[in-house]
Amino acid sequence: MGDRHKVVVVGAGFGGLSAAKALHRADVDVTLINGTTHHLFQPLLYQVATGILSEGEIAVPVREILKKQDNAEVLIGHVADVDVDGRTVTATAPNGTEYQVGYDTLIVAAGASQSYFGNDHFAQYAPGMKTVDDALELRGRIFGAFEMAELETDPEAVQRWLTFVVVGGGPTGVEMAGQIAELAHRTLPGQFRRIDPRQARVILVDAVDAVLPTFGGKLSEKAKHQLEKIGVEVQLGTKVVGVDGTGITVETAQGRQRIESVTKIWAAGVAAPAISRRVAEAAGAEVDRAGRVMVNPDCTVPGHPEIFVVGDMMSLDRLPGVAQVAIQTGTYAGRTVAARVAGKPALAPFAYRDKGSMATISRFSAIASTGGMKFSGFTAWMMWLVVHLMYLVGFKNRVSAVGHWFVSFLGRGRSERVTTAQQVMAREAIQQVTAAGELVKAGRPE
Amino acid sequence: MGDRHKVVVVGAGFGGLSAAKALHRADVDVTLINGTTHHLFQPLLYQVATGILSEGEIAVPVREILKKQDNAEVLIGHVADVDVDGRTVTATAPNGTEYQVGYDTLIVAAGASQSYFGNDHFAQYAPGMKTVDDALELRGRIFGAFEMAELETDPEAVQRWLTFVVVGGGPTGVEMAGQIAELAHRTLPGQFRRIDPRQARVILVDAVDAVLPTFGGKLSEKAKHQLEKIGVEVQLGTKVVGVDGTGITVETAQGRQRIESVTKIWAAGVAAPAISRRVAEAAGAEVDRAGRVMVNPDCTVPGHPEIFVVGDMMSLDRLPGVAQVAIQTGTYAGRTVAARVAGKPALAPFAYRDKGSMATISRFSAIASTGGMKFSGFTAWMMWLVVHLMYLVGFKNRVSAVGHWFVSFLGRGRSERVTTAQQVMAREAIQQVTAAGELVKAGRPE
Repeated sequence: MGDRHKVVVVGAGFGGLSAAKALHRADVDVTLINGTTHHLFQPLLYQVATGILSEGEIAVPVREILKKQDNAEVLIGHVADVDVDGRTVTATAPNGTEYQVGYDTLIVAAGASQSYFGNDHFAQYAPGMKTVDDALELRGRIFGAFEMAELETDPEAVQRWLTFVVVGGGPTGVEMAGQIAELAHRTLPGQFRRIDPRQARVILVDAVDAVLPTFGGKLSEKAKHQLEKIGVEVQLGTKVVGVDGTGITVETAQGRQRIESVTKIWAAGVAAPAISRRVAEAAGAEVDRAGRVMVNPDCTVPGHPEIFVVGDMMSLDRLPGVAQVAIQTGTYAGRTVAARVAGKPALAPFAYRDKGSMATISRFSAIASTGGMKFSGFTAWMMWLVVHLMYLVGFKNRVSAVGHWFVSFLGRGRSERVTTAQQVMAREAIQQVTAAGELVKAGRPE
Repeated sequence: MGDRHKVVVVGAGFGGLSAAKALHRADVDVTLINGTTHHLFQPLLYQVATGILSEGEIAVPVREILKKQDNAEVLIGHVADVDVDGRTVTATAPNGTEYQVGYDTLIVAAGASQSYFGNDHFAQYAPGMKTVDDALELRGRIFGAFEMAELETDPEAVQRWLTFVVVGGGPTGVEMAGQIAELAHRTLPGQFRRIDPRQARVILVDAVDAVLPTFGGKLSEKAKHQLEKIGVEVQLGTKVVGVDGTGITVETAQGRQRIESVTKIWAAGVAAPAISRRVAEAAGAEVDRAGRVMVNPDCTVPGHPEIFVVGDMMSLDRLPGVAQVAIQTGTYAGRTVAARVAGKPALAPFAYRDKGSMATISRFSAIASTGGMKFSGFTAWMMWLVVHLMYLVGFKNRVSAVGHWFVSFLGRGRSERVTTAQQVMAREAIQQVTAAGELVKAGRPE
């Protein structure tokens, strides 16, 4: 074993996992290093945040996925640095201890992190939607807001609790806004006595002038229309210039405006993680404006054929940061390494096969674009359902996920609404508005 | 509405929820105050801690359960005090603000909290098993321990990570120990490359000389035998005298002994919550040694017919702190109030109907005792499965729960193994042993 070709894969997202799997039959030892124990199916994260699915249904232990791949091991750790000359990565274990792992080939797939465009202080008031923690945090804030509204007696404070602002009109923002609206209009009505959840305002803001712009004008319009039909206020050409505990300040052509809202969700920008620049520096590579590593057509770093960068962290042919790109580049990197080790000729340069994209707006309503064909409404939603069901099958959670989908799509319920006291930030967010939202006696008015 | 008889129920556990439901048709206004948004099906908490079920499958929003009960409202808050003369309870909202709710009748069902027998400093090293937070915390520690063991190279440290001590031989302790053993022997083998999960030691300690003593000698013996069969070390007549980050100190007839173990679970004692003594003081009632309020045969506080105490918080006829007692006393209190308001004659004093009890040891293996008849093994397990399935049906989560049970009982998997970074304590617990368990380079030995 010791002298086999050693491949270190950083990250167990779509890119890293695909790379590791592509080395299934290769005569190599694979060490996959990931910060968490799970591979996260990010496209469904919004359903965890809105109480439809449990975190376990979209986050599967990496070592369970790679159980049968004998040449692969999984280590938990955050990769903080790379020594290109010494061919070693340094990772930090959950207990803060550093450890090193040597490599012959390095495949970096650390994904992307949330970007607040230089306003990182927005984060505490408007969490992103990248991790399970984010989703559970938002679950606590969203459901908690309705609970706090029920305790309030000051009408202004009630409305502040019942106003939800989603920043960012991409798939994640659209899906979050749609699900919060469904929550307010389908799940929660009848469960409160002092407030009417239907009075909740769900506002989707984006600086550009269209939602889901990548889908093109026609589908964008349809999506906007579908969102408005289920009660989402879509404010386009609207730039967020301020976020605090009790509201958000936006800027439009008409000037600045403040929206009073406790619960804000940030689904706007992504940026390459810190490790991206570290790898670039160490390997003398360039990064693009988003901090992504610019790679050769074979996904290797210029001058370093032993270092691959794939997925969201990679800058190549202006490819978007989507799951398909990560899966395909990860697989490509893995196959390239396998070919090298087997002494076979190099693969042709990476070519992206666009399988299309889709986004759900609400129950029974989605838009999809594939192979030049465009779909919307129920047809697109069925396509979405089939595609995602097929993914979940691989996650061994189909039965329970389908069960929860029955509850949410056919019924009105949400099976996964638990929030825990461990969600410290949620409590902090609530405390930040105590001054603003004064709670008075909750006794019935006589 | 304003002048209807007002009933305040404190706590949405089995007792409080049953009381509120029993008032379904009564001409009263019910205000149910609970610290969390959910009613927790505590008997299955150990399955959340060991990755079988999601928290949402055993914790259902109280307001969803009472959705159709128009005369009931749900408020979130921790009830800190009671003004018996002013007939008002004071609760603390999630944001720390106090609010008051007036009552004509008060039904207190605040349950029981974990007791460390005066050693509260044990808590951080050996969490209890009372809340969803406890279960998720333990899930993080249990699965995290195997991850840390995989990173270790010092054999002693590895074994310390792979040693799990469960304190308390009651149903919760037995079920936890059994499930951790199954985790180590059925779920995790094959998923690690450096450690063998089967080398994990699961130790169940109790000061008394039998597990599940309430089931009687024969079933106790069977349970002990079944536990040992699946690899649990049962140490009886063993008193815990010390707990710290890296181990536990026990005292037996042979003297003191130290067990090196990172992950400890406390399933030993229960005590009445603080509000129990407050109610007793305010109402001039007595409490028993466990701090439970001593009540009249009709579950009211002596001298205060308008105050009921039910469930684990109640001291009556030496009744045990089990779900059935809480359900039956809660229902009794609700019916008594309904009868009073309707001007009907008072109900006969409360009489407990023992429906029997059961405890699972492992997959396909349990013990049950009902109506003098005793069952064990597969028969008892089937009884357990049927009873708990019927409960879950009411929770609207049957489909997903059954799905997860298929995964775990027929297969080997665990669908719910996610741990989040929000589990601060888990990280702290790990850090506490850094000194002890030095992590060295994780590179393969050449």
